[in-house]
Amino acid sequence: MKRYGKVYIVGAGPGDPELLTMKAYKVLLKADVILHDALVDDSLLEMIPKKAQRYFVGKRAARHYSTQAATNELLFDCAKKHEVVVRLKGGDPFVFGRGFEEHRFLQERNVAVEIIPGISSCTAVPELQKVPVTCRGYSRSFWVMTATTKSGKINPEISVAAGTKATLVILMGLRKLRKIVKLYQEIGQSEMPVMVIQNGSLANERSAVSTMSNIERAVLKNGLSTPAIIVIGEVVSLHPEFVIQEAVKIAS
Amino acid sequence: MKRYGKVYIVGAGPGDPELLTMKAYKVLLKADVILHDALVDDSLLEMIPKKAQRYFVGKRAARHYSTQAATNELLFDCAKKHEVVVRLKGGDPFVFGRGFEEHRFLQERNVAVEIIPGISSCTAVPELQKVPVTCRGYSRSFWVMTATTKSGKINPEISVAAGTKATLVILMGLRKLRKIVKLYQEIGQSEMPVMVIQNGSLANERSAVSTMSNIERAVLKNGLSTPAIIVIGEVVSLHPEFVIQEAVKIAS
Repeated sequence: MKRYGKVYIVGAGPGDPELLTMKAYKVLLKADVILHDALVDDSLLEMIPKKAQRYFVGKRAARHYSTQAATNELLFDCAKKHEVVVRLKGGDPFVFGRGFEEHRFLQERNVAVEIIPGISSCTAVPELQKVPVTCRGYSRSFWVMTATTKSGKINPEISVAAGTKATLVILMGLRKLRKIVKLYQEIGQSEMPVMVIQNGSLANERSAVSTMSNIERAVLKNGLSTPAIIVIGEVVSLHPEFVIQEAVKIAS
Repeated sequence: MKRYGKVYIVGAGPGDPELLTMKAYKVLLKADVILHDALVDDSLLEMIPKKAQRYFVGKRAARHYSTQAATNELLFDCAKKHEVVVRLKGGDPFVFGRGFEEHRFLQERNVAVEIIPGISSCTAVPELQKVPVTCRGYSRSFWVMTATTKSGKINPEISVAAGTKATLVILMGLRKLRKIVKLYQEIGQSEMPVMVIQNGSLANERSAVSTMSNIERAVLKNGLSTPAIIVIGEVVSLHPEFVIQEAVKIAS
């Protein structure tokens, strides 16, 4: 049987380089080659020794490496040539990360794979804004999803979630914000607290905190753009800025 | 105004000490006092310099520190006496961790608080068993909850989640396993894949992977006990042992 190098599929966390795990950092230090995507922040890449060869394989990469199939092949190719191959992914590789697909592809070719979990933005990004996804008296569960289906339509699970008490965390959803607002308005939940966070955990973090009926204006006012996280639920009312807004509303 | 030390509310991750973030490790190195609970593994505590004073304040701790109110007061007391106070919590402090309550209690008393997210077991523990909470063609969302309500009853959100395509992650739920199985049987989902994992990420990790109708037997056979995580959904069929089981079933 052919001998291949080992591939580590590693979560980089939400962005702040210090939110990398010690396990991930150790493996990056001994890496021969690193394949990373657009969600891995430059400040994190700067922290890693320059000796490792690097490939940018995100969706925004040059065409040749922009498909999942091409990334899979490149990973396999690297495992043929190198001892330590690191596939570095923003957040956690098994949370909407296609990490499982890469793992399976490599395992089927007898390449040893180790998964190193990362901090997922779905909990950490609201947390760094001091909003817990669960809190006694507010929410006893949270539901994480993307805003769109494979075909580009709005995820039908959003309307199901809107009918529950779960905190809803929507990743990659800013472009569907108008539709999400409409959906909540239609079920009489215009006053539902909601926040949008861009670049969570980084120095250029931006957020907008409001109710459904005002969130689009707040997003525009604060100049938010993609990629961003949307958090919906009563827990958002625990955000310090939400309290201030309500106070202003009452006073005016 | 009185000057207090700073309190860091820190996630310790699922158990493996190397899954601590670099940020958490740095703050532990400079800690004057550390308050930790039962979910923080001994191997992690051994990694921290001995100079810091330590308090065990988990639910299984001596009576005096076993209530949330007592922990809050102890934290405040520590902030009065020390510069760097670390509140170390298993998993992530804002995912069913009461971290928000502690943060709020301290903020109301003018104590500076910094939150350092940790890797939550809800995604990392299934991931280390090679089961992704989301995967194209299997599940496009995951829903995380505890098994019981404050009054000790089964969480009614479990039956709502059972009617959706979301991967369901139930924390602290092993004692309700029979009720969960019954609930799935009643809606004709006896063959739903399910796994239970104890001590995820640690050397003594144990798991059981099966269908709803067989999971109780598998848990018993593999000697699983609390605390454990339950993962329910089609994604569990991606677990290598699930495939083997099915093959055996067909052959017999």
